Amino acid sequence: MSDAQHRTPRDGPRKAQEIFDATLTLLAARGYEGLTIEGVAEKSGVNKTTIYRWWPSKGALVGAALTGARRLDLVLEDTGSLQGDLEALLRAVVTLLTVPPAADIAVPALGATTQSPELALHVRDFFAERLARERIVFDRAVARGELPADADPMLLVDLLAGAAWLRIVLRGLPVEEDFVARAVRTVLKGAATA
Amino acid sequence: MSDAQHRTPRDGPRKAQEIFDATLTLLAARGYEGLTIEGVAEKSGVNKTTIYRWWPSKGALVGAALTGARRLDLVLEDTGSLQGDLEALLRAVVTLLTVPPAADIAVPALGATTQSPELALHVRDFFAERLARERIVFDRAVARGELPADADPMLLVDLLAGAAWLRIVLRGLPVEEDFVARAVRTVLKGAATA
Repeated sequence: MSDAQHRTPRDGPRKAQEIFDATLTLLAARGYEGLTIEGVAEKSGVNKTTIYRWWPSKGALVGAALTGARRLDLVLEDTGSLQGDLEALLRAVVTLLTVPPAADIAVPALGATTQSPELALHVRDFFAERLARERIVFDRAVARGELPADADPMLLVDLLAGAAWLRIVLRGLPVEEDFVARAVRTVLKGAATA
Repeated sequence: MSDAQHRTPRDGPRKAQEIFDATLTLLAARGYEGLTIEGVAEKSGVNKTTIYRWWPSKGALVGAALTGARRLDLVLEDTGSLQGDLEALLRAVVTLLTVPPAADIAVPALGATTQSPELALHVRDFFAERLARERIVFDRAVARGELPADADPMLLVDLLAGAAWLRIVLRGLPVEEDFVARAVRTVLKGAATA
């Protein structure tokens, strides 16, 4: 128990990734209401008392799984330009929403936010944690003089990631070859004629 | 029966709006799987044989409700400028996603698309029908010289509406006073320093 104060959200038992995967898979399949720690224990092959020791409630477990699962991890590239960094970021979002097995989990797990107010709180944390990590892309761009100092990272991320969500999840349409480059160019340079 | 050929998706029995409202309310509350025409009949007070006569399946009824419900209707303004027209469009999306009673129906009904492949097909049609109606905004802008002729209306709509969805539904954050104007300005003029 003395190590409790050293725990971070990414700590966990040896089989944390298996537990997170089982959690997100069951969340995707059954929704938040249908998810149980017993079900996660069964699917992951980890004793349920072990799971409860680390995450004392379903909410705590879902929160940890959303931010700690390697499958949903956010890898940011430093390409040397804002256009390049945002293309890498948007490409990662498109991959998350379209390429199995991550997409099979991410889309229903995030989409289920509209069905459960409790899940919605964890999804908020998931997006807040990602934005905190994405800020470096914008800080670098301001330092390079590519963005004004008062640029709004959340707005830029939401325009890009939101377009991907709408196209892929709500329209159910394929993402064209040049979607990422065009979306980033539009947000940075504008669609209007000069 | 002879008038069948004159039917459009917006035709329907006298109490069509009540039927659509009941359909969307039950869809929001129970999901696509839990929705039944019997339930819609009970909630709307319309005999189920009447409903079946117009919409022979649950899928047909949901499709008609999504595109025909006045609650989800899209009102486009002609403000004389692209910035103004897109602000009006985005304001309408924000209202749809935040102001009850429409928001109580629209968010869960559209969000449930991730839980049901059959519903997803109807949501696709819903967005395709809206885009077809939104095109006039872009045609007018091209005619006024505000947009190049090869501008991509779907991309512009998805950047704006997607940002609203992400902010409101997934981040669960309030929409600031100037969100609409800033989002439209970014998409038209770009965020990058000149």
